[in-house]
Amino acid sequence: MPPRFRFSIHATDGKARLGTIAMQRGEIRTPAFMPVGTAATVKAMKPQDVRATGADILLGNTYHLMLRPTAERVDRLGGLHRFMGWDRPILTDSGGYQVMSLAELTKRSEDGVAFKSHLDGSRHLISPERSMEIQRLLGSDIVMAFDELVPTTSTREVQAAAMERSMRWARRSRDAFDAGGAHPERAALFGIQQGALDEGLRKTSADALLDIGFDGYAVGGLAVGEGQEAMFDVLDYAPAQLDPARPRYLMGVGKPDDIVGAVERGIDMFDCVLPTRSGRTGQAFTRDGPLNIRNARFAEDQRPLAEDCACPVCAQFSRAYLHHLVRAGEILGAMLMTEHNLFYYQALMADLRDAIGTGQLSGFASAFRARYHARTA
Amino acid sequence: MPPRFRFSIHATDGKARLGTIAMQRGEIRTPAFMPVGTAATVKAMKPQDVRATGADILLGNTYHLMLRPTAERVDRLGGLHRFMGWDRPILTDSGGYQVMSLAELTKRSEDGVAFKSHLDGSRHLISPERSMEIQRLLGSDIVMAFDELVPTTSTREVQAAAMERSMRWARRSRDAFDAGGAHPERAALFGIQQGALDEGLRKTSADALLDIGFDGYAVGGLAVGEGQEAMFDVLDYAPAQLDPARPRYLMGVGKPDDIVGAVERGIDMFDCVLPTRSGRTGQAFTRDGPLNIRNARFAEDQRPLAEDCACPVCAQFSRAYLHHLVRAGEILGAMLMTEHNLFYYQALMADLRDAIGTGQLSGFASAFRARYHARTA
Repeated sequence: MPPRFRFSIHATDGKARLGTIAMQRGEIRTPAFMPVGTAATVKAMKPQDVRATGADILLGNTYHLMLRPTAERVDRLGGLHRFMGWDRPILTDSGGYQVMSLAELTKRSEDGVAFKSHLDGSRHLISPERSMEIQRLLGSDIVMAFDELVPTTSTREVQAAAMERSMRWARRSRDAFDAGGAHPERAALFGIQQGALDEGLRKTSADALLDIGFDGYAVGGLAVGEGQEAMFDVLDYAPAQLDPARPRYLMGVGKPDDIVGAVERGIDMFDCVLPTRSGRTGQAFTRDGPLNIRNARFAEDQRPLAEDCACPVCAQFSRAYLHHLVRAGEILGAMLMTEHNLFYYQALMADLRDAIGTGQLSGFASAFRARYHARTA
Repeated sequence: MPPRFRFSIHATDGKARLGTIAMQRGEIRTPAFMPVGTAATVKAMKPQDVRATGADILLGNTYHLMLRPTAERVDRLGGLHRFMGWDRPILTDSGGYQVMSLAELTKRSEDGVAFKSHLDGSRHLISPERSMEIQRLLGSDIVMAFDELVPTTSTREVQAAAMERSMRWARRSRDAFDAGGAHPERAALFGIQQGALDEGLRKTSADALLDIGFDGYAVGGLAVGEGQEAMFDVLDYAPAQLDPARPRYLMGVGKPDDIVGAVERGIDMFDCVLPTRSGRTGQAFTRDGPLNIRNARFAEDQRPLAEDCACPVCAQFSRAYLHHLVRAGEILGAMLMTEHNLFYYQALMADLRDAIGTGQLSGFASAFRARYHARTA
C-alpha cells in the first residue's frame, strides 16, 4: 500500500531539490508542473493525452466545480477522478482566489466569502469548513487551505490583516480537514503562506502555518501582477521560511522563465493556465521563446512548431497547417497547440529535474535563459 | 502497384452491393461513409482518430479550401494529404453546391459561377475547368465534376435547364480532368446525375453522363429539403439508370435511416456533416435513436452514451460527464461527442456490409428501423 503522502528529496543543487511525492494514486516527480483542469477537463485534451505529456498530477478548481456540476453531484458520481477519467493525483485549490476574481457581489467576513455565481446568479458561501467539504466531496488528493487574498498593491495594514485572517482560516481548514471522515486517510492538506511582498509578514505567516502543521506549503499571493523581479525577491527568502522537509508550491506560476527561476529558489510544484490558454489563442512555447502561430510568416512554414521537440504534434504537423487551423478557428488547432504546449512544459520540468540530479542547474538555467530570450533581444 | 481505380463487387443482396474500391492511397470498403473534413480537418478530430473509427476515405470541400488556405498554397505545401496528415484517399466535392449556398453575390453563366468570398469579400470564379484545377492542386483522389444546382421546388423548365447545363459542364470537367497532367494517373473522376425529382430528367442526365464516361456516378441534387420519402422515390429508379459496374455515391446523405434505405436501393458511398456537426451541438447517435446529451435527465446518468457501443468514448466516459462538458461549452465535449458519432456511423456501415455479405440486409434493415424509431414512437 503506497503511503498517504511521503515527500523524498533525492538530490539538491543550490536551493533546488529533486524529489518525489508518493501518494496512494501515484507518484509525483518534483519539480512538478500541474496542468489546470478547471471544469473537470484540461481544456481541449483527453486525459490519456495529458498523461502522455508527462503530467503526474492535475489541478482542479473548487470554485468552478462547486458551481457546475457541483461537488455534491461529483460525489454522487463517484468523485472527480472517475468523473473525468484521470486516476492519478489531483490537487484542488481552495476556491479562495477565484471566488474573489470571478464571482459577483462578493462579501467577505470572518466566516468566509458570500457571493453570487457568475454562471446563474445563485448565492453561495465559501468558508474554510465549506472549502474542505467541497474538496472532500470532489475526492481531492491534495487539498488547499482556504485563504484570503488582497492585491499586492494594498497597504501593509490591509496585507497584514488579510494574512492574519488567512492564518486563522488555515487553522479552521486544518481542523475541518482532520474532522472530514475517511478522506484524510488518502488526502494531504497544504497551507498557504501570505504576506504579499513583505518579508516580515511572510515570516509571521510561515511561523503560523508551521505551528499548525501541513503536508506541504504553498507560497500564495504572487503572480498577480507584481512582475517577475518582485516575485523573485520574495522567492529569495520565502521558501526558506517554510519546512525544508515539505514540498513548496508556487501557485499560479507561470511563464517558463518564471518556473526556472523559482526552481532555482527552491520551489517544487507549479500550476498555470498559460500552456493551455495560450494554446487556444495560438501561442506556442519553444526553447527559442514563444511564437504566435497566427503570424503571416508561418503560412507556408513546413517546419514543426519546434524542431527539437519530441511531441506528437511536432512529429506530424507543420506550422503552416497549425497556422491555417488557428486562423480558421478550428477546434483541432486548439487541441494540437495545447498538446504541444503541455509537452513543452513537462519537457522543461524533466530538463530541470535532470539538471538538479546532475548538479548542473546553474548552467542549464543560464543556457535556457540565453536561448529563450535570444529571439526577442 | 495498386490500380488507379478498381471497383469490385463481392456480393449483392437485392439492389445492395458489398464491394471495395482499390486506389493508390488505399482501399475503400463499400457501402462507405466519408466523414467531412471541410477546412482540411474533420472538426475536433485528429486524423489518426478518424481512421480509428473505421473511415477509409474523407471528403474535403473545394469551396472552403480554395478560399483558405487556397489550393495553390496547399499545392506548394505538398498537397492536402500531407498538409492535414491523412494518407488515405480523399474525395473532394466540386465546389458547386457550396458556392451556391455559402458565397455572396453569386452570378451564374454558361462559363461558371462568379462570387464573392463569405470570408473576406474577395472575388472568384469557379468553372468546370477551375474546379478541376483546384481539385488537382489539392491532390484529390476522387474528383467530382462541377455541376449546377437549383432548388427541387423549381419549375421543371428550370430543373431541365440546370440539368442540361450540368451535363455540358460534366463534359468540360472530363476534358479538363483528362488534360490535367500527371494527376489523372492517380485520381478518379465522378460525374453527377441531376434532374431533381423527375424520372425523365434523371434518365436524360444519366445517359449524358454514361456517354461521357466516369469512374463513378453520384446521385446529386437530393437531401436538400425534399424529405426522405421523395428522396427514396428517386432512389427507387435513379441508381439503375447509372452504370451497374461503377460505384454510386449519394451526396450529402444523411441520417442513419436515410443511409440504410439508400443502401437497400443500391447506393455505395455517402458523406454527411451530421455526425460531426451534431456532435458539436450535443446530439449523440445510438441504435436506439439520437439523444441530446444536454437534456437534464442525463446529469447523473452513469451509463455510456450507448451501452452496446465499442467506441473509446463509451468505454471511458459517462453520459453525466458528457452532459457536464457540453453544458459547460468545453472543447472536450465536442471532441468526444464527435468521436462517438463517427464510430456510430462507421459501425453502421460495417453492419450494413456484413448484412449484405450474408444476404441478411432486409432483416437487418427492418430490425434497425424498429429499434431506431422505437423510443420516439
